[in-house]
Amino acid sequence: MSNSPNTSPAPAGTKRGAAENFSGTAWVTLLADTNPTDCLVGTVTFEPGVRNSWHSHPTGQILVVSAGTGYYQEKGQPARLLHPGDAVIIAPSVVHWHGATATSLFAHYFINPGASQGLTDWLAPVTDEEYRAAHA
Amino acid sequence: MSNSPNTSPAPAGTKRGAAENFSGTAWVTLLADTNPTDCLVGTVTFEPGVRNSWHSHPTGQILVVSAGTGYYQEKGQPARLLHPGDAVIIAPSVVHWHGATATSLFAHYFINPGASQGLTDWLAPVTDEEYRAAHA
Repeated sequence: MSNSPNTSPAPAGTKRGAAENFSGTAWVTLLADTNPTDCLVGTVTFEPGVRNSWHSHPTGQILVVSAGTGYYQEKGQPARLLHPGDAVIIAPSVVHWHGATATSLFAHYFINPGASQGLTDWLAPVTDEEYRAAHA
Repeated sequence: MSNSPNTSPAPAGTKRGAAENFSGTAWVTLLADTNPTDCLVGTVTFEPGVRNSWHSHPTGQILVVSAGTGYYQEKGQPARLLHPGDAVIIAPSVVHWHGATATSLFAHYFINPGASQGLTDWLAPVTDEEYRAAHA
């Protein structure tokens, strides 16, 4: 047995999420980088209380929760509490954030189809008030 | 908290993989069915010794292994032994099969971008001889 020649080389390990887009420590691991399906796949693990900023994806995104408890919120909508096995379908250009609850780690897969058309448009941080409201 | 209106309804639970495409019992759970990202996501769990038939995907597929030990093989290539956390990138139209080893359960996520262009073109079953060769 050996690696298939049609399989992309393993991406380059785990990186810290960019400080300007996360409220604290989050770890990002790419599982499928640039590849012939044009779909990017990876995981994000948020420390308790950590969330990303408001953002959107030009071609949408799917999340599948793998560990812990977290939130997903779209602009103007109530937050959704997420548990392992839950999937979230994020339509193109919908503004949203996701992250851990105050007391739990949170990890999810992320799936970005059409990755060559752009991954993420980052906006303002989620304020403490907005984050606290998610817990209400 | 409530479900977001932009989130598709939960797909309809777990179904047995079609008998004509699997050598035995496999369970298929859709996590993201038809949706605005045009990307289908789900899981397959193969009982030990069970594999699917040779097949290809018009827009490719990505697998991420979640449990157990299994194989992925492309036509004319050696089989690749897979463990949890491994990702497989399957280019469009590449003929391949995947399934459990003889002695282990095997579960993976499947990700089909461009789902509206077609999901799977099924071909012949993987013979016992082909399957045994994967273990060599």
